[in-house]
Amino acid sequence: MQTHTLLMPLDMHLHLRDGVMLENVAPLSAYSFSGAIVMPNLVSPVSSLKDIQEYKQRIMASVPNDYFEPYMTLFYKNYDKAFLESVADDITAIKLYPAGITTNSEGGVSSFNIKEMSETLEAMSELEIPLCVHGETDGFVMDREAEFMSIYELLASSFPKLKIIMEHITTKEAVEMLDKYENLYATITVHHLLLTLDDVVGGMMMPHNFCKPIAKRPEDLDALLSVALKAHPKVMFGSDSAPHPQNKKESCGCAAGVFTAPIALQLLCEIFEQYESLDNLQAFVSDNAQSIYGICPEFKEVTLEKRTFVIPQNYSSVVPIYAGQAINWAIQTVD
Amino acid sequence: MQTHTLLMPLDMHLHLRDGVMLENVAPLSAYSFSGAIVMPNLVSPVSSLKDIQEYKQRIMASVPNDYFEPYMTLFYKNYDKAFLESVADDITAIKLYPAGITTNSEGGVSSFNIKEMSETLEAMSELEIPLCVHGETDGFVMDREAEFMSIYELLASSFPKLKIIMEHITTKEAVEMLDKYENLYATITVHHLLLTLDDVVGGMMMPHNFCKPIAKRPEDLDALLSVALKAHPKVMFGSDSAPHPQNKKESCGCAAGVFTAPIALQLLCEIFEQYESLDNLQAFVSDNAQSIYGICPEFKEVTLEKRTFVIPQNYSSVVPIYAGQAINWAIQTVD
Repeated sequence: MQTHTLLMPLDMHLHLRDGVMLENVAPLSAYSFSGAIVMPNLVSPVSSLKDIQEYKQRIMASVPNDYFEPYMTLFYKNYDKAFLESVADDITAIKLYPAGITTNSEGGVSSFNIKEMSETLEAMSELEIPLCVHGETDGFVMDREAEFMSIYELLASSFPKLKIIMEHITTKEAVEMLDKYENLYATITVHHLLLTLDDVVGGMMMPHNFCKPIAKRPEDLDALLSVALKAHPKVMFGSDSAPHPQNKKESCGCAAGVFTAPIALQLLCEIFEQYESLDNLQAFVSDNAQSIYGICPEFKEVTLEKRTFVIPQNYSSVVPIYAGQAINWAIQTVD
Repeated sequence: MQTHTLLMPLDMHLHLRDGVMLENVAPLSAYSFSGAIVMPNLVSPVSSLKDIQEYKQRIMASVPNDYFEPYMTLFYKNYDKAFLESVADDITAIKLYPAGITTNSEGGVSSFNIKEMSETLEAMSELEIPLCVHGETDGFVMDREAEFMSIYELLASSFPKLKIIMEHITTKEAVEMLDKYENLYATITVHHLLLTLDDVVGGMMMPHNFCKPIAKRPEDLDALLSVALKAHPKVMFGSDSAPHPQNKKESCGCAAGVFTAPIALQLLCEIFEQYESLDNLQAFVSDNAQSIYGICPEFKEVTLEKRTFVIPQNYSSVVPIYAGQAINWAIQTVD
């Protein structure tokens, strides 16, 4: 049987939520990943040292004894340097949301005034805290990310020592930015390596493929695949796995978010094998992230085997992408 | 109180379905419209004289005694001339669906072979039977209509005496075609004068705004408004009102179709008043269609009044567009 082993897989963009949902989903990520960058967009955003430490404790209490490192993030606001120094040891990055752009982002940035942001971003540069950005404007849904490129350019050129991660990129415009600015990096989800808008509204309307940023055009998918499959050194895997209860996804006015965490590695094996080879997958799911973030996860070995695996209809209250469909890779062992 | 009277309003593209759904929705169209072009895409498409006559009887049996004319259409296949002569008096148009492109269109045209279609389309030209076309390819969802323009060009230039109606147009590309070929006409829905893709998947996912062709970009909406508000003489109102039971719209894998028939005139008053004036609405909802199709509906007068009207949450099992929302126009009297 064909197998493929991944060392220290990392999910560089993950929503673990809180409460019962956290307890349901955290063990699933902890099973197949060494660690994950945990997003701070709780109902009350993670924006103080106490918030960070308490949320980390709740995460650790939700996962089994197996090793899993939650790399904590702070919700971006204009913080002063003293505060950032006080939290620097407890966070791996700061996550910036434009106000109102996605789930629980109401307290985000409403205008990109470089002067007002300068103290925070200069301090982050000095303290070597990367800035993770949800890069969308409030424009037309298919243009939001492309329109945001000018803001990435402004941030990247104004703060050349700040590591800026373009989160969950979905367009050829974002891919092109990677080679334009030394300090721009990106995460790519597994679903954006699989879907276009056709899979959301091209046939019937598919709520479990609906997310923000929305899946774009075929040429965008091709551009994402081109850098992911080669494991472009500035690109990392980040699932953006975003659980919502089934009733919130399958009702009128469904929430945005695709749940992929427990099947991400299996799907990535399938995609890399189908288009290219499994050779670059290790770099895409771990090595690039270790270099970019300068993190050293403890040893973990995940072996996948090539066999039919039917994706469960649900994980407790959450329906995953491709529920009930058969794929070609399954997790064999985790050590 | 401000009022506005429309004479013989016509819905030049309507889905009445069959059975219980027909009984539910036909009276709603018959109340506010003089007549409607009735689409033939039943589960077993309307494709024989018997089908046409029986379906017309079922429609008439479903509407109250008030005058309402169902203008019947035949499902396009390659028919011979003798057959078309035998049905010409019983139909107003023939509707062409590319195979599999929308609800119950599996038996449609799978390749546009002009030679094979020639006998049918020549006979239709001679018999002055307009061809109504669902103009979408099976390409990427946002490109399907624009990609179909070359097929319209082929049809329009190959059969210059055939009246071709581009149904429910949604793009600037289709608008531009109107002035390019003398024999190309178009219907426009009320929802495509209101929605863009933002209203379908830009915020939360909105199944009751999901239809085929899908609502497009802001510049497409502007192009549609520009010809509708001026009542471009080659443009007619056609609702494409497409009822589905609520449970089929609000479940995972929701069906395409927006239900607008009972509120179309009210919404059109609102749109025309907001952007321009009510002056051209009469031409858009009736006069243009009478000229293009050469039809003379019996007298009917629908008076709308400007007052707050809350759109019902549902009409029997069907949820309309903007359910529960207040609009500014209501129907006052129908004579």
